[in-house]
Amino acid sequence: MTEALEDLRDGKPVLVHDFEDRENEVDMVYLAGEVTHDKVARLRNDAGGLVCVAVHPDAARRLGLGYMSDKLAKAGDERLVDADLGYDDRSSFSTWVNHRSTRTGVTDNDRAKTVRRIADAVETVLAGGVFDFPSEFRAPGHVAVLRGHDDLLDGRQGHTEMSLALADEAGEVPATVVCEMLDDETGDAMTVDDARRYADENDLAFLTGEGFARLVH
Amino acid sequence: MTEALEDLRDGKPVLVHDFEDRENEVDMVYLAGEVTHDKVARLRNDAGGLVCVAVHPDAARRLGLGYMSDKLAKAGDERLVDADLGYDDRSSFSTWVNHRSTRTGVTDNDRAKTVRRIADAVETVLAGGVFDFPSEFRAPGHVAVLRGHDDLLDGRQGHTEMSLALADEAGEVPATVVCEMLDDETGDAMTVDDARRYADENDLAFLTGEGFARLVH
Repeated sequence: MTEALEDLRDGKPVLVHDFEDRENEVDMVYLAGEVTHDKVARLRNDAGGLVCVAVHPDAARRLGLGYMSDKLAKAGDERLVDADLGYDDRSSFSTWVNHRSTRTGVTDNDRAKTVRRIADAVETVLAGGVFDFPSEFRAPGHVAVLRGHDDLLDGRQGHTEMSLALADEAGEVPATVVCEMLDDETGDAMTVDDARRYADENDLAFLTGEGFARLVH
Repeated sequence: MTEALEDLRDGKPVLVHDFEDRENEVDMVYLAGEVTHDKVARLRNDAGGLVCVAVHPDAARRLGLGYMSDKLAKAGDERLVDADLGYDDRSSFSTWVNHRSTRTGVTDNDRAKTVRRIADAVETVLAGGVFDFPSEFRAPGHVAVLRGHDDLLDGRQGHTEMSLALADEAGEVPATVVCEMLDDETGDAMTVDDARRYADENDLAFLTGEGFARLVH
C-alpha cells in the first residue's frame, strides 16, 4: 500500500481491482496532476478503456460538474437514463470536456492538458479558491469526467471512489485518471490474473478491493 | 475509391484524411454493421482515438439522437457549450450510449454489440420502420454517437459526413465507426505520411478530402 502511494506521487500508474461481484475490472490509475502525453499513450495502449478523470464530489459540486444522467433527464432524455445498470445504482459519468486551449481535444497532448488542468481546478476549489470552469473548458469534449459519490467509499465502491481515496491517502489532490484494462484477444475485460502478471512484469503496485478496504478505512 | 468501397463491404477498415485546413486528422473507418470485438481492438490499438459511431442525420432525428451541445444547453450548461471550436461551427457529438444487454459497456465485445445494434436501428428507421431507441440503449455509456450534419457533406466536411457518404456510396447502411489515428511518440495526431505508410503496410485504402470530394460528388 505504501509502495502504491509512493508510486502515484512519483507519477507511476497503480492497478486497482474493484470486487468480483461488482464490475470485476482492473483499472490503471494515475494522479491527474501527473499526467503527460506519454502516460495517456500508455493508458490507451496498455489499458485500452476510456481515459476518464475522477473528481472529488466536493470539487465537482463547486465546479458545477453534475451527473450526466441528471443532465440528460433535464434535457428530455429521461427514458435513456440508466435504469438497469447491473452492478450499481448509477453511473459516475459527468460531462465529457476539453480544455479550451486544445485543438481537436483527442490527441495525447490535448487530453493530458485537459486532465492536468482539471487537477488544478480541483485543487483550487478545495483550497477555497474560485475557479470558473466554463471559462476554461468546453463541452462536449474528449475526456470523461467522473464524479465521486457524495459519501465517497461509504456510498459507492467503484474505481472512481477507490482512486480518489488513494489520492487522498497519498496526501495529493483528489483528481485521478482511471482507465479500464481490456483483453485484446477475448474482447472482454483483462482477467485479474493477466492484470496481476502485467503489474509484476512492469513493477507496478496491484490493489484489490478487499485489501484496499482494510487499509484505507 | 472502388477498392475502398469493396473493403468497407468486406469489413476492412479504410483510412480517411479530412483537410489540411480542418482537423487535418486521419480516421480509421469501418461500417458499423461489420464491427466485431477484434475490430474494436484494432481501433484502440492501431488508431487510438475515441471509438465513435457516426449516424445519418435522418436516422438520428427519427431515433431521437440530438446534439449533446443542445442537451447541455437545455440542462443549464450553456456556458460550457462550444463557442470557440477552431476548425468548425459545432461538434458532431450526440449522446454516449451502451446497448442495454451489455454489462459495463466498455469491453470490446460490449462496444461491438452497441455499435452493431446502432447500425440495425439506423437501417430500420431509414426503411420506414419503428425503433424505440431508449428501450434498447441506455445513457450515459461508452460509445459516442456522432450525428451527421443535416446537409451531409454540403453542410460539413468532417470525418462524420465523409464516412457516411462512403457508406452510402457503397450501398450500405449509413452508420459508420470512426476513430482518430494518434502518434504514440509525439502526443499529436498521426501525421498524414505515417498514416499513409500504415495504409501501405496493411494494404488498406487511403482517401483524402480532396480526392474524396471529386469522387463522391
